[in-house]
Amino acid sequence: MLRWMRQAIAERRAGLLTYGITPPKKSFEEAKRREVARRQLERIAKLPVDGLVIYDLQDESTRTDAARPFPFMETVDPVDYGLDYLAALKVPKIVYRCVAPRSLHDLRGNLARLDTAGGLTVLVGAASRTQVARTRLPEAYALCRDELPTMPVGGVVIAERHQAKGGEERRLLEKAAAGCSFFVSQAVYSPGASKDLLSDLYYCCAEEGQAVPPILVTLSPCGSRKTLEFLGWLGVSVPRWLENELLHARDILQTSVDLCCEVFADLSTFARAKGIPLGCNVESVSLKKEEIEASVELLERVARLLGRDTSPKAFPATVAHTKLDGSR
Amino acid sequence: MLRWMRQAIAERRAGLLTYGITPPKKSFEEAKRREVARRQLERIAKLPVDGLVIYDLQDESTRTDAARPFPFMETVDPVDYGLDYLAALKVPKIVYRCVAPRSLHDLRGNLARLDTAGGLTVLVGAASRTQVARTRLPEAYALCRDELPTMPVGGVVIAERHQAKGGEERRLLEKAAAGCSFFVSQAVYSPGASKDLLSDLYYCCAEEGQAVPPILVTLSPCGSRKTLEFLGWLGVSVPRWLENELLHARDILQTSVDLCCEVFADLSTFARAKGIPLGCNVESVSLKKEEIEASVELLERVARLLGRDTSPKAFPATVAHTKLDGSR
Repeated sequence: MLRWMRQAIAERRAGLLTYGITPPKKSFEEAKRREVARRQLERIAKLPVDGLVIYDLQDESTRTDAARPFPFMETVDPVDYGLDYLAALKVPKIVYRCVAPRSLHDLRGNLARLDTAGGLTVLVGAASRTQVARTRLPEAYALCRDELPTMPVGGVVIAERHQAKGGEERRLLEKAAAGCSFFVSQAVYSPGASKDLLSDLYYCCAEEGQAVPPILVTLSPCGSRKTLEFLGWLGVSVPRWLENELLHARDILQTSVDLCCEVFADLSTFARAKGIPLGCNVESVSLKKEEIEASVELLERVARLLGRDTSPKAFPATVAHTKLDGSR
Repeated sequence: MLRWMRQAIAERRAGLLTYGITPPKKSFEEAKRREVARRQLERIAKLPVDGLVIYDLQDESTRTDAARPFPFMETVDPVDYGLDYLAALKVPKIVYRCVAPRSLHDLRGNLARLDTAGGLTVLVGAASRTQVARTRLPEAYALCRDELPTMPVGGVVIAERHQAKGGEERRLLEKAAAGCSFFVSQAVYSPGASKDLLSDLYYCCAEEGQAVPPILVTLSPCGSRKTLEFLGWLGVSVPRWLENELLHARDILQTSVDLCCEVFADLSTFARAKGIPLGCNVESVSLKKEEIEASVELLERVARLLGRDTSPKAFPATVAHTKLDGSR
């Protein structure tokens, strides 16, 4: 089971599906952390996913001068959270790792532990040029290449960066050359911006006789005007028409789930026609019950879009849906 | 039959379908003009359209400093062309009229003739602020309101203008207040830009308790790199991914027809969900046989998308598809 995700990435499979969470706040006492983990475990075990993405939140306030709509809160370390608190969850853990705040030595131990547990990582560079970086992305890539060669390393891909200055397909391929075998996008609300990037990537790969690596499109339900504002703060491009739909919606959360489905269906059709191995990562970064439920609904709808069997029988627990040898 | 289009606009019907042509060059001798008209008539009589749009080409070189990829050629007057050369074609003529180069007196006679023949007009203002205007758009609107109150007057709507500076929904509603009862877009290749405009228009109308007027989305097949360049010169926004598809296509013309269909299907779904009366105008502005055939294919595919019966039996000639009282 744990090897399934690694194999799927090695085979550049389309249609991978993950669920993305943030660890509980560091300020939570141990009992509360365990309680959060227990509830997450119970929920995630029922989901038809290939992997669990665990984010590594960092204070990105150096990236912009605008005030952060939600305050930054330090969380439990995502590797600790995935491997200790969620140890009973037999789903591959895909742990985001912001490399800038850590020493190379620290990173080495942390990632080696993740590798031993069958995990995967997504390495994230500094939030801006002004952030002091103890480790730079190329050093972290080199560490993984040299010392943890079997652990798949992912990279972050941002369509908005492509829109603003172009060349994101080149940066993606440079990361691939440095060892990234899959990519996860920032939250996507603009099908146009993502198509532009996928298209440029596709033709660039075709020209160089290279295969397009698997890309997970991140979808993130939006439960309020304030969250919409936060998406803007994070640099997520929301087209005018889609913003209108959310702002005028009677139920902004449900509307965002519907729109996220539309966006993914659009991108998925586009990618399938070109043989781009597109997958999906559904983000659940809120603690509110209704927003968590919305993310589960979104995940299940995307699973159906991807043609997966989402009946409880097919996924009584995530452990049951793949065999130990990685076959289905 | 001729009244059908007028009635459909008065009722704000969705799904109107027109075909758009340019008159032959003025330099053509009479025999050649007649020959062009005969061939167009034969072709258009078979099409399942509600109206025939006839463009009024003007030298727009004051609009931009960039060199025009195709030279400007003066054509036969579109009212003369529609009412004389294509008189036998029993389809309502929707004649574009650039008002700037004409005196109000001249315009009055010209439009009155069109009105008597059951036609419609689309009034077009100066191409730029620097163009010398003998008549301004507000004067032309006033003329129609006061002297030709039963002839539907259309306006041009440009999503790219909305993208660049916003407020196109306001300009559209100002034109509506001045008497425009329908709108025709510039060639559309960017579904995102058009959705942004339709969305802003929809919510603006909802707020003011106003009905959204019928809007015809213009689709224009693109047969070559040079035509693609010309679209750029005209200010048509072509998203990066769509440009890639065209530039890498084995058959750019056929690919453009496929993409135009996709764009319209996307916009049509979007508009239907909101009750926006969207229609389509398929442009055929080339003299090349294969480009003309492509426009006919595109029109027939859009007709099917709109749920029309396009069998030859249903449209043995355009005259047959509506009764004289305008009912279907």
